[in-house]
Amino acid sequence: MKITCKKSEILNSVNISLKAVPAKTTMPILECIIIHVTDSTIKFITNDMELGIETIVNGLITESGSVAINAKIFSDIIRKLPDSDIVIETDNNYMTTISCEKSVFTIAGKSSDEFPALPEIEKKEPMVLSQFSLKEIIRQTVFSISDNESNKIMTGELFEINGNEFKVVSLDGHRISIRKITLKSEYAPTKVIVPGKTLNEISKILSGEMEDEVRIFFTDKHILFEFDNTIVLSRLIEGEYYKINQMLSGDYETKLTINRKVFLECIDRATLLIKESEKKPIILGITESAMELRVNSTLGSMNEEMDIVKEGKNILIGFNPKFLMEALRVIDDEEVTIFMTNPKAPCFIKNAEESYIYLILPVNFNAVK
Amino acid sequence: MKITCKKSEILNSVNISLKAVPAKTTMPILECIIIHVTDSTIKFITNDMELGIETIVNGLITESGSVAINAKIFSDIIRKLPDSDIVIETDNNYMTTISCEKSVFTIAGKSSDEFPALPEIEKKEPMVLSQFSLKEIIRQTVFSISDNESNKIMTGELFEINGNEFKVVSLDGHRISIRKITLKSEYAPTKVIVPGKTLNEISKILSGEMEDEVRIFFTDKHILFEFDNTIVLSRLIEGEYYKINQMLSGDYETKLTINRKVFLECIDRATLLIKESEKKPIILGITESAMELRVNSTLGSMNEEMDIVKEGKNILIGFNPKFLMEALRVIDDEEVTIFMTNPKAPCFIKNAEESYIYLILPVNFNAVK
Repeated sequence: MKITCKKSEILNSVNISLKAVPAKTTMPILECIIIHVTDSTIKFITNDMELGIETIVNGLITESGSVAINAKIFSDIIRKLPDSDIVIETDNNYMTTISCEKSVFTIAGKSSDEFPALPEIEKKEPMVLSQFSLKEIIRQTVFSISDNESNKIMTGELFEINGNEFKVVSLDGHRISIRKITLKSEYAPTKVIVPGKTLNEISKILSGEMEDEVRIFFTDKHILFEFDNTIVLSRLIEGEYYKINQMLSGDYETKLTINRKVFLECIDRATLLIKESEKKPIILGITESAMELRVNSTLGSMNEEMDIVKEGKNILIGFNPKFLMEALRVIDDEEVTIFMTNPKAPCFIKNAEESYIYLILPVNFNAVK
Repeated sequence: MKITCKKSEILNSVNISLKAVPAKTTMPILECIIIHVTDSTIKFITNDMELGIETIVNGLITESGSVAINAKIFSDIIRKLPDSDIVIETDNNYMTTISCEKSVFTIAGKSSDEFPALPEIEKKEPMVLSQFSLKEIIRQTVFSISDNESNKIMTGELFEINGNEFKVVSLDGHRISIRKITLKSEYAPTKVIVPGKTLNEISKILSGEMEDEVRIFFTDKHILFEFDNTIVLSRLIEGEYYKINQMLSGDYETKLTINRKVFLECIDRATLLIKESEKKPIILGITESAMELRVNSTLGSMNEEMDIVKEGKNILIGFNPKFLMEALRVIDDEEVTIFMTNPKAPCFIKNAEESYIYLILPVNFNAVK
């Protein structure tokens, strides 16, 4: 095998490939990038058994062939080479030389034979959306998946397509995040659970540009993302997602509108006094036209008043500040509207069109100041 | 005590003060910043028993007094407050309220009585230089102090003043770094050993501007840096510094000139293959007009050829790459000249004026490729 590629081309593809290299594995071959060269194409392939990535590298092919190279060493070497043409050549024993200008690295590669091939996927009609939209909708929901592997379904996100509506849902037992966007075309109804890890990795690779497209294919067991020169293939999580519609009742007793940034900064300040181990809530005291935020901890106390517009009853209610902050951070609106019922019932942060709904459960607190 | 200061003023002084707050201590009072307010001055004071800092804060004094406040909590609070006026007020029990706009923090302070005062220093004629020069000369030498506390003298730097020459020396048993600058005035001969920690911390506070001055006072046991609104006082290390002049003999067998950046990047690439635990050297093979750099490790091998201008004998010599890189990084010249004698004798990187001399001991290596 012998190829010549620009450093920038290889580096870009290596960075994409690394997203499917497992940090820990009992199969050393998975720590490798496969360089797979046919007469017409140079491909880098990685696979952590949940997630597989294939990406095409532009370059000159002198001799076809395949080699498995340790991904970390390969990426370190490429990164440090001068910004010039790089020649990669492998001999019959998989000894691989990587040359660039006057610099020559020689490292031992392996046969790619034992590398697990990515499953063949039958590509039917894809769902098409912009890389921007996919990246955004992941960012706006993925923070509220659970990292507790004992409940597999909570570690993924629901992708639900109905006509031209694309809905993404994540939940962790304390909160639910829901985002909806409108697609350009209509699609057959689809409901799948995509691993959170897949979404985190793919959002690092997506360009985030409005003009760049991503095509998503679904099968029974897999989801395949196709964009630029890259395909990302992931297993789906099996099982039925939670029925969340009954949790989204329309009643409320208190409705308040507040400047998002002011509220976020105030919670951020308050959390200074909260040690992770103490799990102290922040307490919101909502009266006619003001909201007092209060924290008491072993380190000290803090209170701050904010202007709000309120309809309905006064209320005193406690929250885990992290949950409020994570939702407020991914909303773009200048003002947010919050709906509350009582100190035990979930609160909702949502807009009129319900293109976003963030449900957060309150926490108990000691009302004595 | 009651004061009102701009957030930016307090934050700046807090950041300076933090440099003398110990990370670990058996005296909890040392984890505090002392806010010391007289009729005319607001001062923040910190002291880790090696290093003491006093810095003046501009602001409005309503009531004088003193309080000790946990430095970490205080700095966290100040950092997160809005960019506005901050009022700090203490009651008779040292309960301290920090208010800014609508935000009010209350934390428990302590009496400053048990805080160890900084020693009184008799200020004689100071050595004056620019903050730029002091910051640079520290950066260019401090990397080669030893971090082994069992040899105290090696953990510090020699500051030697002779007439208008200011010389700084550091060494760790494997290398010596020497820098000289010319001062604007003549001073009495002085030779002191300044703790490396002091120099690391002070270089973080110095502005690094050519126009900003720093005045340095020496006593038997202390060095005092005075600049802007701040004084930094440090103990000196007691003892006699190493006699290094006999190590700086003028003979050499090989003299080579090389592009500094090209050499540095080449070593940087080569170190990829060197695991910390292996302690493999890089091997330089110097022939007529080229130098070959070579590394062999369990990960693979690398070689690269560089253009040089050479006088004298060919030589094959091995080095710890870190030592070469650290010296090359702090030299500003485009080309460096390196003097070698034999594979067991120290090499010197120095310029014609000897305003810098970096001595590095070679290491043994297995010459078989």
